[in-house]
Amino acid sequence: MKKGSIFIVSAPSGAGKTTLCRRLTGAVPRIVHSISYTTRQAREGEVDGRDYFFVDEDRFMRMVADGEFLEWAEVHGNLYATSRAKLFEMIQCGTDVILDIDIQGAAQIRQKGIDATFIFVLPPSLEILEKRLISRKTDSEKVILRRLKKAREEIGDYMQYDYVIVNDSLDVALNELGSVVLSRRLHISHVDHEWIKETFGLEAAGSKF
Amino acid sequence: MKKGSIFIVSAPSGAGKTTLCRRLTGAVPRIVHSISYTTRQAREGEVDGRDYFFVDEDRFMRMVADGEFLEWAEVHGNLYATSRAKLFEMIQCGTDVILDIDIQGAAQIRQKGIDATFIFVLPPSLEILEKRLISRKTDSEKVILRRLKKAREEIGDYMQYDYVIVNDSLDVALNELGSVVLSRRLHISHVDHEWIKETFGLEAAGSKF
Repeated sequence: MKKGSIFIVSAPSGAGKTTLCRRLTGAVPRIVHSISYTTRQAREGEVDGRDYFFVDEDRFMRMVADGEFLEWAEVHGNLYATSRAKLFEMIQCGTDVILDIDIQGAAQIRQKGIDATFIFVLPPSLEILEKRLISRKTDSEKVILRRLKKAREEIGDYMQYDYVIVNDSLDVALNELGSVVLSRRLHISHVDHEWIKETFGLEAAGSKF
Repeated sequence: MKKGSIFIVSAPSGAGKTTLCRRLTGAVPRIVHSISYTTRQAREGEVDGRDYFFVDEDRFMRMVADGEFLEWAEVHGNLYATSRAKLFEMIQCGTDVILDIDIQGAAQIRQKGIDATFIFVLPPSLEILEKRLISRKTDSEKVILRRLKKAREEIGDYMQYDYVIVNDSLDVALNELGSVVLSRRLHISHVDHEWIKETFGLEAAGSKF
């Protein structure tokens, strides 16, 4: 069976990457959203096991020590990680997996030489990013300023990624993200060579034609 | 100004590449269909300067001698070519161009090291290809058999291409071709780095944030 592909989506907070990734899995078949482990407090409406696996720092650090994470990083004072076993289980079954992770986590995956497509999501401008963070009403002014400073540093890393999507209109950005996923499936490195060879008798002698 | 990209679409005759390319330019902005020169007779409904530039063999061979073609090939007894000047004019203006050309022409463009995305369109099966050629009613039985034999040889070359699209449903194939074009525009090699640097002040000191 053909293995699934890994798509890594990074963005400064407030660029809308989580919404984008969740909407994608609803719009495109055969792709699931990887659920991260985090030590951050659940926000209103977030559900353990659906949005994140919420764990305390002790448990998190034990999992780090046991090598259970493919990548992990501290972001704005909270810890985030991707489970190695869960990810590879899914791609072994032929399912594509989308990971929304920060740039440190993405860099760890890149350094490990794991075959993945790296996508960077940009806000339309820093001013719009600021407005979005304010309207989200989940962060204090101090946290927002810290996030904006961090955002600018992170955006400086966009050249490390394979694709760049500007999230101005969510529908347009969703269509663009979908195109990246779909085109990856059509790429010569991912097509079903067995099917092509059988269907067109490329190696068989004495075909009808 | 950012240059346009070149997309090369090849397929065995009857796989539907011309219809697909024409539909694409109607569905996706900023992409035009390159008009080939040919010595083939115009089919019913075909218009000179819209579907092809219809020329006689003398004129065609003079253009070959004058180096006016980027690629040219004989396909089923007729000559086909792409004008070098017309193609580069369009991409200089920032327009993407889609060329539907046969595998010999595609190979010439590849050998010249021209930056292009190569897409191979497959029929769902040889049996369906045969039915399509018969229902087109433009070819004699002898020509159809020759086209089918050629098709199988040509399909053997699909590994030389970057992307493979199976044209079973035209709408699905059109969406897939659109995804390849769109994702190419989002690729790090094609994004507008100047805009990103200006918008996020990546090289400027003393930003607001």
